[in-house]
Amino acid sequence: MVDIVILGTVGLDDIKTPFGEVKGVLGGSATYAAVAASFFANPGIISIIGSDFPEESKEFLKSRSIDLKGIKIIDGKTFRWGGYYEFDMNEAKTLKTELNVLAGFSPEVPNEYRDVKVLFLANVDPKVQMHVLEQMKKTDFVVMDTMNFWITTKKETLLRMIKKVDLLLLNDSEARQLFGTTNLVIAAKEALKLGPKFIIIKKGEHGSLMFSDGTHFNAPGYPLENTKDPTGCGDSFGGSLAGYLASTEDYSEKNIRKAIVFASAVASCNAEEFSLNKLKNIDLAHIQKRYSEMKEFREF
Amino acid sequence: MVDIVILGTVGLDDIKTPFGEVKGVLGGSATYAAVAASFFANPGIISIIGSDFPEESKEFLKSRSIDLKGIKIIDGKTFRWGGYYEFDMNEAKTLKTELNVLAGFSPEVPNEYRDVKVLFLANVDPKVQMHVLEQMKKTDFVVMDTMNFWITTKKETLLRMIKKVDLLLLNDSEARQLFGTTNLVIAAKEALKLGPKFIIIKKGEHGSLMFSDGTHFNAPGYPLENTKDPTGCGDSFGGSLAGYLASTEDYSEKNIRKAIVFASAVASCNAEEFSLNKLKNIDLAHIQKRYSEMKEFREF
Repeated sequence: MVDIVILGTVGLDDIKTPFGEVKGVLGGSATYAAVAASFFANPGIISIIGSDFPEESKEFLKSRSIDLKGIKIIDGKTFRWGGYYEFDMNEAKTLKTELNVLAGFSPEVPNEYRDVKVLFLANVDPKVQMHVLEQMKKTDFVVMDTMNFWITTKKETLLRMIKKVDLLLLNDSEARQLFGTTNLVIAAKEALKLGPKFIIIKKGEHGSLMFSDGTHFNAPGYPLENTKDPTGCGDSFGGSLAGYLASTEDYSEKNIRKAIVFASAVASCNAEEFSLNKLKNIDLAHIQKRYSEMKEFREF
Repeated sequence: MVDIVILGTVGLDDIKTPFGEVKGVLGGSATYAAVAASFFANPGIISIIGSDFPEESKEFLKSRSIDLKGIKIIDGKTFRWGGYYEFDMNEAKTLKTELNVLAGFSPEVPNEYRDVKVLFLANVDPKVQMHVLEQMKKTDFVVMDTMNFWITTKKETLLRMIKKVDLLLLNDSEARQLFGTTNLVIAAKEALKLGPKFIIIKKGEHGSLMFSDGTHFNAPGYPLENTKDPTGCGDSFGGSLAGYLASTEDYSEKNIRKAIVFASAVASCNAEEFSLNKLKNIDLAHIQKRYSEMKEFREF
């Protein structure tokens, strides 16, 4: 039974990093988020793919108990993204974005997805996020992610969307851009004024920060020696966070702290191999071990 | 009785940030480090100043129980530095460096400083750091800082110096530059191979990381909303760390974790006003409160 619904892209990526290159591999914000969430809960995806989408990728998602009935399949080509990372691995440089079947995507939410514990609106056009949210009958908790492209091109829609969610995820450069300040504390306070109860700012290798009414949580980054491909780290962070919350049904600040550390653990694993290759080959015990290490290495 | 000896510069700074501008204010690596250390211990400074050094600054240092007998006063002008910060406040851009009396500085360590609990070699020419270390009869623990300028101009001397200390402080860009890698975990492991038992990488607002034999500690940054002038934050971090260690006489990894959090607390205060103006007006209770907050905001 689906307990977390994830809206986002399912696509095929070409990725080049200083440590290698892959072409046409499984990617997309909903894919990373759902696979990450599947360590904790039973995700269903809302997305769209073309008739060229590989059968084996569908089988892989099903093998993770991910429900695919919210994925529309239409004639045409699946969404494709291509990008590369330079040596600091901090920021993806986009080389191509072929929307293909994603152009004009206006999803209908399956009836059995309309009453769900957690809704994760992963990175897509905020207009589509709004359209999905409006179809929901009941959700206990709504998490939303976005990206710089929407801040630049659809800021008004994005701000309207932010007002409607419980938890907003931004990375540090998005937070600075959206609120016109270099100071992340000020950016987070501005974001809270819009309505969300929780703001999480993801800072890559530097961990993440949560801000809520009068409280602050500082989560560490996992000290990775081997970072091969950061693609999908933000999405798998959001997916694990939302999945953990759905599995525990506890949306308190205290439990969100734990969710963030689990999310950091999963995201750090994700960076260690290309595409979803690392997440494919680890289990919850592996993630729990990393969670414990993260507890230990910040004790004082 | 002096229990921590600090080698570094004592100077006068011109500083411009997006939040204001000051000229000819008290500065220098040993000044910031000693004032920060004075919250915990009794520092003595090894440095050199000119006959133009303001009497009131000397009086201020004495009022903090900082011993000045290691500061040589000669005819001429005091060391002067001028720089500015852009909006991100991450990196000082140097506008002028007038060595003045610092040129040819070859300090003689006073006899009563030669047997001391902690020696902090703050940022100066590594040749001068070596010269001071060679004059010591006994020290329980040696902490060393440096800067990018010495990595570029005196790398060989710097590497020889690093081999002789217990704890090396670097900021993240220095660590990446010195070891030719963007990965801080790899940089820290290379640094440990040189000899120090502990490597601390300072990451400004992102906190700091400690690496030791098989252990890792992740320290948070304090969430500052009001950063006016980051000058001396690295020096006050090093000074408080060394001061706390001298006051506790416990050089275990466990105690260094606590020292790092105290150091972060002091450094974060330092950024809130120009020059040493904030450190002048707070007491240990203020720092302890920030220490407790830092404990609370990383609990999970």
